[in-house]
Amino acid sequence: MTIAVLCGGVGAARLLRGLVRVVDPAALTAIVNVGDDTEMHGLHISPDIDTIIYTLADAIDPDRGWGLVDETWNAMSQFERLGNPTWFNLGDRDLATHIVRTERLGVGDTLSQVTEHLAASWGLGCRIVPVTDDPLRTTVTVADGEISFQEYFVGRRHAVPVTNVRFDGAEHATPAPDVLPAIANARRVVIAPSNPLVSIDPVLAVPGVREALIERRSDVVAVSPIIGGKALKGPADRMLEELGHEASVVGVARLYAPLAATLVVDEADAGSVAAVEAEGMRCIVTDTIMSNPERSASLGTVVLA
Amino acid sequence: MTIAVLCGGVGAARLLRGLVRVVDPAALTAIVNVGDDTEMHGLHISPDIDTIIYTLADAIDPDRGWGLVDETWNAMSQFERLGNPTWFNLGDRDLATHIVRTERLGVGDTLSQVTEHLAASWGLGCRIVPVTDDPLRTTVTVADGEISFQEYFVGRRHAVPVTNVRFDGAEHATPAPDVLPAIANARRVVIAPSNPLVSIDPVLAVPGVREALIERRSDVVAVSPIIGGKALKGPADRMLEELGHEASVVGVARLYAPLAATLVVDEADAGSVAAVEAEGMRCIVTDTIMSNPERSASLGTVVLA
Repeated sequence: MTIAVLCGGVGAARLLRGLVRVVDPAALTAIVNVGDDTEMHGLHISPDIDTIIYTLADAIDPDRGWGLVDETWNAMSQFERLGNPTWFNLGDRDLATHIVRTERLGVGDTLSQVTEHLAASWGLGCRIVPVTDDPLRTTVTVADGEISFQEYFVGRRHAVPVTNVRFDGAEHATPAPDVLPAIANARRVVIAPSNPLVSIDPVLAVPGVREALIERRSDVVAVSPIIGGKALKGPADRMLEELGHEASVVGVARLYAPLAATLVVDEADAGSVAAVEAEGMRCIVTDTIMSNPERSASLGTVVLA
Repeated sequence: MTIAVLCGGVGAARLLRGLVRVVDPAALTAIVNVGDDTEMHGLHISPDIDTIIYTLADAIDPDRGWGLVDETWNAMSQFERLGNPTWFNLGDRDLATHIVRTERLGVGDTLSQVTEHLAASWGLGCRIVPVTDDPLRTTVTVADGEISFQEYFVGRRHAVPVTNVRFDGAEHATPAPDVLPAIANARRVVIAPSNPLVSIDPVLAVPGVREALIERRSDVVAVSPIIGGKALKGPADRMLEELGHEASVVGVARLYAPLAATLVVDEADAGSVAAVEAEGMRCIVTDTIMSNPERSASLGTVVLA
């Protein structure tokens, strides 16, 4: 069965790690957020794509949840000496990924082509595509003005309130070639348990993507990134509240009801099934905490059932 | 006393290391070959400039003679995985230098400006300038065709015969802003003990540089890179013969006599003084093997005497 998954970073990577264990990876297309992408030292960095590739390659650092395992950090000391910014940590091996990406983009490859090359180099069997090959950058408004997503997420450790989120370039972006066909042809479309406002929304902001999901609504399943009112990792819970939503599975249901028929929630939220269903979504309760590959696979099985 | 030094890589770096010990570094301008420069992984690499900066910063790897001491090589394994060429080794900390150089060139800085920034970041007191900010690339002809200098020097370990050397871009290159004033105003112009054919010749090939030296001939001192018929390091001896010159201090004198009044030779070549003088150069005999900073300083003193 063919599957398309709308993805942010860590949560999506863990779900994909399960899905490739329960279906033929060749039938799986991960459609990945690029709003987090940034330029650092002149290099093009695609954090969500890399988190997914490294996770599926079993090369992710399991403690940090980003970057490569057994990484070294020696280039950083030289960046510091040369007066380059050092608030965004880049490991030595990881740096090669960004160098190769930048090199290939520089000679005219699309981000889709580069991503396909990176995934193939790691021997991945599934397809990983950026939602768009065009520039799309998430900008957030905080107390002292607008900053890039990485300045918020890494620079400020997502510890400051956000009053607005904007996806620069989204309105003029075109879905990457594989995106709309993957959604149209999938037996099941999955919205990964990623931050709805800064991981999934920029994917939906690319013209045509939201419409494609609405078209397939009955086959779209979302997994709630909110468990018992909290995000497992990252600022999704605070951000939902800061931007006028409810930090709960019901708040998530209100966001996703127009495009997804089903919401998968954690057992901690079993008491909210009726409230989710009142928002117009079918509600499935299961264990959604993907603390190891086996639990990722169990969740994958439920999502595809 | 102000000094200008025409430089290649290791030999020049060692002489400079001595000169900064015997004169005010602020009075010293190193004019550096860029014919060895190359693009690797989309990064601009300037091997001679970096060898000089790292040596003067006491950060060079003393065994290899290039790159940083205590270096790690982890990015290379990732380049290999991603299918990028791996025959040109780049250390992890060194990589940051190339990234910063490429970033700054990319936003419109000149190579002179970037080099000034790098030298200042390492706290160097002397001025290090590329001979030109324009593209100038050394290409050598070997049995199977033309290859770049680095393909010859690193890729083939300079173990193949060279039948021709060409400096692409030289005829349209302009000396970098500091180059001609440094030569015109120097009390002494020094030609470092670098390969005459692929380190010094590309410097002289930039229109105006050779003429500027001829103008100052009586104040120009060259140090022979050939000692007892051999190069201390690298292919200078073989290359001289392959290209129809003599691999001896006399061969060096024939090349430099039009632009330099004096040739400094090693004690091993004391017997060749008359032959050098027969080529029209004054000949000074001293210990030219710069195996430590003190011996570099001694040679520096002789060169400036």
